[in-house]
Amino acid sequence: MSAVNLAATQILGNLGSIGYGLAAIGPGVGIGIIFGNGTQALARQPEAAGLIRANQILGFAFCEALALIGLVMPFVYPTS
Amino acid sequence: MSAVNLAATQILGNLGSIGYGLAAIGPGVGIGIIFGNGTQALARQPEAAGLIRANQILGFAFCEALALIGLVMPFVYPTS
Amino acid sequence: MSAVNLAATQILGNLGSIGYGLAAIGPGVGIGIIFGNGTQALARQPEAAGLIRANQILGFAFCEALALIGLVMPFVYPTS
Repeated sequence: MSAVNLAATQILGNLGSIGYGLAAIGPGVGIGIIFGNGTQALARQPEAAGLIRANQILGFAFCEALALIGLVMPFVYPTS
Repeated sequence: MSAVNLAATQILGNLGSIGYGLAAIGPGVGIGIIFGNGTQALARQPEAAGLIRANQILGFAFCEALALIGLVMPFVYPTS
Repeated sequence: MSAVNLAATQILGNLGSIGYGLAAIGPGVGIGIIFGNGTQALARQPEAAGLIRANQILGFAFCEALALIGLVMPFVYPTS
Protein backbone atom coordinates (compact mmCIF):
# COMPACT_ATOMS: atom_id res chain seq x y z
CA MET A 1 0.00 0.00 0.00
CA SER A 2 1.42 3.34 -1.01
CA ALA A 3 -0.51 6.49 -0.19
CA VAL A 4 0.83 9.16 -2.48
CA ASN A 5 -0.59 12.47 -1.31
CA LEU A 6 0.70 15.24 -3.50
CA ALA A 7 -0.79 18.61 -2.61
CA ALA A 8 0.95 20.75 -5.15
CA THR A 9 1.41 24.48 -5.06
CA GLN A 10 -1.55 26.54 -6.13
CA ILE A 11 0.01 29.84 -6.90
CA LEU A 12 -1.77 31.87 -9.51
CA GLY A 13 -0.70 35.03 -11.19
CA ASN A 14 1.75 36.45 -13.65
CA LEU A 15 5.34 37.42 -12.96
CA GLY A 16 4.59 40.66 -14.75
CA SER A 17 2.85 41.86 -11.58
CA ILE A 18 6.08 41.49 -9.63
CA GLY A 19 8.00 43.15 -12.44
CA TYR A 20 5.77 46.19 -12.45
CA GLY A 21 5.84 46.32 -8.66
CA LEU A 22 9.63 46.45 -8.68
CA ALA A 23 9.60 49.02 -11.49
CA ALA A 24 7.32 51.28 -9.45
CA ILE A 25 9.57 51.45 -6.36
CA GLY A 26 12.07 53.89 -7.77
CA PRO A 27 9.64 56.28 -9.47
CA GLY A 28 7.48 56.29 -6.34
CA VAL A 29 10.38 57.54 -4.26
CA GLY A 30 11.65 59.80 -7.02
CA ILE A 31 8.36 61.60 -7.62
CA GLY A 32 8.11 62.09 -3.87
CA ILE A 33 11.54 63.72 -3.79
CA ILE A 34 10.66 65.97 -6.74
CA PHE A 35 7.41 67.25 -5.30
CA GLY A 36 8.72 67.39 -1.74
CA ASN A 37 11.59 69.62 -2.77
CA GLY A 38 9.25 71.55 -5.07
CA THR A 39 6.96 72.30 -2.15
CA GLN A 40 9.94 73.57 -0.17
CA ALA A 41 10.93 75.72 -3.15
CA LEU A 42 7.42 77.17 -3.36
CA ALA A 43 7.60 78.20 0.29
CA ARG A 44 11.01 79.77 -0.22
CA GLN A 45 10.02 81.84 -3.26
CA PRO A 46 6.26 81.76 -3.98
CA GLU A 47 6.54 84.26 -6.85
CA ALA A 48 8.43 81.67 -8.92
CA ALA A 49 5.53 79.23 -8.77
CA GLY A 50 5.18 78.85 -12.54
CA LEU A 51 8.84 78.05 -13.06
CA ILE A 52 8.86 75.63 -10.14
CA ARG A 53 5.77 73.82 -11.29
CA ALA A 54 7.02 73.42 -14.85
CA ASN A 55 10.23 71.90 -13.57
CA GLN A 56 8.31 69.54 -11.31
CA ILE A 57 6.16 68.27 -14.15
CA LEU A 58 9.22 67.73 -16.33
CA GLY A 59 10.90 65.62 -13.68
CA PHE A 60 7.68 63.78 -12.97
CA ALA A 61 7.34 62.78 -16.63
CA PHE A 62 10.87 61.39 -16.70
CA CYS A 63 10.28 59.39 -13.51
CA GLU A 64 6.87 58.10 -14.53
CA ALA A 65 8.21 56.84 -17.84
CA LEU A 66 10.30 54.26 -15.98
CA ALA A 67 7.24 52.78 -14.32
CA LEU A 68 5.19 52.82 -17.52
CA ILE A 69 7.95 50.97 -19.36
CA GLY A 70 7.82 48.35 -16.61
CA LEU A 71 4.08 48.17 -17.17
CA VAL A 72 4.24 47.28 -20.82
CA MET A 73 7.32 45.07 -20.84
CA PRO A 74 5.50 41.90 -19.65
CA PHE A 75 3.56 42.07 -22.91
CA VAL A 76 6.79 42.40 -24.87
CA TYR A 77 8.88 39.64 -23.34
CA PRO A 78 8.10 36.24 -24.80
CA THR A 79 6.19 33.95 -22.45
CA SER A 80 6.07 30.76 -24.47
CA MET B 1 5.05 -2.05 2.86
CA SER B 2 6.19 1.36 1.74
CA ALA B 3 4.23 4.34 3.01
CA VAL B 4 5.04 7.20 0.70
CA ASN B 5 3.57 10.30 2.29
CA LEU B 6 4.59 13.33 0.32
CA ALA B 7 3.07 16.44 1.82
CA ALA B 8 4.30 19.01 -0.65
CA THR B 9 4.27 22.72 -0.22
CA GLN B 10 0.85 24.19 0.20
CA ILE B 11 1.35 27.77 -0.70
CA LEU B 12 -1.81 29.54 -1.70
CA GLY B 13 -2.33 32.99 -3.01
CA ASN B 14 -1.89 35.13 -6.02
CA LEU B 15 1.32 36.72 -7.22
CA GLY B 16 -0.67 39.93 -7.60
CA SER B 17 -0.49 40.38 -3.82
CA ILE B 18 3.30 40.50 -4.02
CA GLY B 19 3.06 42.77 -7.03
CA TYR B 20 0.88 45.31 -5.24
CA GLY B 21 3.05 45.08 -2.15
CA LEU B 22 6.12 45.97 -4.18
CA ALA B 23 4.27 48.71 -6.05
CA ALA B 24 3.25 50.29 -2.73
CA ILE B 25 6.81 50.63 -1.38
CA GLY B 26 7.83 53.54 -3.56
CA PRO B 27 4.65 55.62 -3.28
CA GLY B 28 4.57 54.99 0.47
CA VAL B 29 7.98 56.56 0.86
CA GLY B 30 7.24 59.20 -1.78
CA ILE B 31 4.02 60.46 -0.21
CA GLY B 32 5.86 60.62 3.10
CA ILE B 33 8.57 62.78 1.56
CA ILE B 34 5.98 65.07 -0.06
CA PHE B 35 3.98 65.67 3.09
CA GLY B 36 7.07 65.79 5.29
CA ASN B 37 8.58 68.54 3.18
CA GLY B 38 5.15 70.17 2.87
CA THR B 39 4.90 70.38 6.64
CA GLN B 40 8.34 71.99 6.77
CA ALA B 41 7.23 74.42 4.04
CA LEU B 42 4.11 75.31 6.02
CA ALA B 43 6.25 76.15 9.03
CA ARG B 44 8.56 78.28 6.90
CA GLN B 45 5.83 80.32 5.19
CA PRO B 46 2.35 79.70 6.65
CA GLU B 47 0.79 82.40 4.46
CA ALA B 48 1.48 80.28 1.34
CA ALA B 49 -0.61 77.43 2.73
CA GLY B 50 -2.95 77.27 -0.25
CA LEU B 51 -0.13 77.06 -2.79
CA ILE B 52 1.71 74.47 -0.68
CA ARG B 53 -1.31 72.30 -0.16
CA ALA B 54 -2.23 72.34 -3.86
CA ASN B 55 1.29 71.23 -4.77
CA GLN B 56 1.18 68.48 -2.15
CA ILE B 57 -2.06 67.09 -3.49
CA LEU B 58 -0.71 67.19 -7.06
CA GLY B 59 2.37 65.21 -6.08
CA PHE B 60 0.30 62.86 -3.97
CA ALA B 61 -1.95 62.07 -6.93
CA PHE B 62 1.04 61.30 -9.16
CA CYS B 63 2.58 59.01 -6.52
CA GLU B 64 -0.66 57.26 -5.64
CA ALA B 65 -1.32 56.52 -9.30
CA LEU B 66 1.75 54.25 -9.35
CA ALA B 67 0.34 52.14 -6.52
CA LEU B 68 -3.14 52.03 -8.02
CA ILE B 69 -1.74 50.89 -11.36
CA GLY B 70 0.00 48.09 -9.49
CA LEU B 71 -3.33 47.24 -7.91
CA VAL B 72 -5.14 46.69 -11.18
CA MET B 73 -2.37 45.17 -13.28
CA PRO B 74 -2.80 41.62 -11.87
CA PHE B 75 -6.23 41.67 -13.47
CA VAL B 76 -4.77 42.82 -16.76
CA TYR B 77 -1.84 40.46 -17.23
CA PRO B 78 -2.89 37.09 -18.61
CA THR B 79 -2.98 34.36 -15.96
CA SER B 80 -3.74 31.34 -18.09
CA MET C 1 10.90 -5.02 3.54
CA SER C 2 11.71 -1.44 2.59
CA ALA C 3 10.06 1.32 4.62
CA VAL C 4 10.20 4.42 2.46
CA ASN C 5 9.07 7.34 4.60
CA LEU C 6 9.57 10.57 2.72
CA ALA C 7 8.47 13.55 4.80
CA ALA C 8 8.99 16.40 2.38
CA THR C 9 9.07 20.07 3.20
CA GLN C 10 5.85 21.40 4.61
CA ILE C 11 5.74 25.05 3.81
CA LEU C 12 2.34 26.44 4.55
CA GLY C 13 1.02 29.93 4.18
CA ASN C 14 -0.44 32.40 1.81
CA LEU C 15 1.33 34.77 -0.50
CA GLY C 16 -0.92 37.51 0.87
CA SER C 17 1.26 37.66 3.98
CA ILE C 18 4.27 38.52 1.88
CA GLY C 19 2.19 40.98 -0.08
CA TYR C 20 1.07 42.87 2.99
CA GLY C 21 4.56 42.78 4.45
CA LEU C 22 5.93 44.42 1.33
CA ALA C 23 3.07 46.91 1.21
CA ALA C 24 3.85 48.00 4.77
CA ILE C 25 7.49 48.92 4.08
CA GLY C 26 6.85 52.12 2.19
CA PRO C 27 4.09 53.60 4.37
CA GLY C 28 6.14 52.70 7.45
CA VAL C 29 9.01 54.83 6.24
CA GLY C 30 6.72 57.48 4.82
CA ILE C 31 4.73 58.08 7.99
CA GLY C 32 8.02 58.30 9.85
CA ILE C 33 9.25 60.98 7.46
CA ILE C 34 6.00 62.94 7.81
CA PHE C 35 6.00 63.03 11.59
CA GLY C 36 9.74 63.48 11.77
CA ASN C 37 9.59 66.57 9.59
CA GLY C 38 6.44 67.66 11.38
CA THR C 39 8.28 67.64 14.68
CA GLN C 40 11.01 69.80 13.20
CA ALA C 41 8.36 72.14 11.77
CA LEU C 42 6.70 72.44 15.19
CA ALA C 43 10.02 73.44 16.70
CA ARG C 44 10.59 76.01 13.97
CA GLN C 45 7.23 77.73 14.26
CA PRO C 46 5.16 76.59 17.26
CA GLU C 47 2.38 79.11 16.59
CA ALA C 48 1.46 77.21 13.39
CA ALA C 49 0.79 74.03 15.33
CA GLY C 50 -2.79 73.64 14.13
CA LEU C 51 -1.82 73.99 10.48
CA ILE C 52 1.11 71.61 10.90
CA ARG C 53 -0.87 68.98 12.72
CA ALA C 54 -3.68 69.04 10.16
CA ASN C 55 -1.16 68.56 7.37
CA GLN C 56 0.48 65.67 9.20
CA ILE C 57 -2.80 63.84 9.68
CA LEU C 58 -3.68 64.35 6.01
CA GLY C 59 -0.40 62.84 4.90
CA PHE C 60 -0.67 60.04 7.44
CA ALA C 61 -4.07 59.06 6.09
CA PHE C 62 -2.78 58.93 2.53
CA CYS C 63 0.21 56.78 3.52
CA GLU C 64 -1.76 54.45 5.73
CA ALA C 65 -4.27 53.82 2.97
CA LEU C 66 -1.55 52.16 0.89
CA ALA C 67 -0.86 49.60 3.62
CA LEU C 68 -4.54 48.96 4.27
CA ILE C 69 -5.14 48.33 0.57
CA GLY C 70 -2.34 45.76 0.70
CA LEU C 71 -4.12 44.15 3.65
CA VAL C 72 -7.37 43.54 1.81
CA MET C 73 -6.10 42.78 -1.68
CA PRO C 74 -5.29 39.07 -1.00
CA PHE C 75 -9.02 38.58 -0.52
CA VAL C 76 -9.74 40.31 -3.80
CA TYR C 77 -7.32 38.57 -6.13
CA PRO C 78 -8.54 35.20 -7.36
CA THR C 79 -6.81 32.22 -5.72
CA SER C 80 -8.30 29.33 -7.66
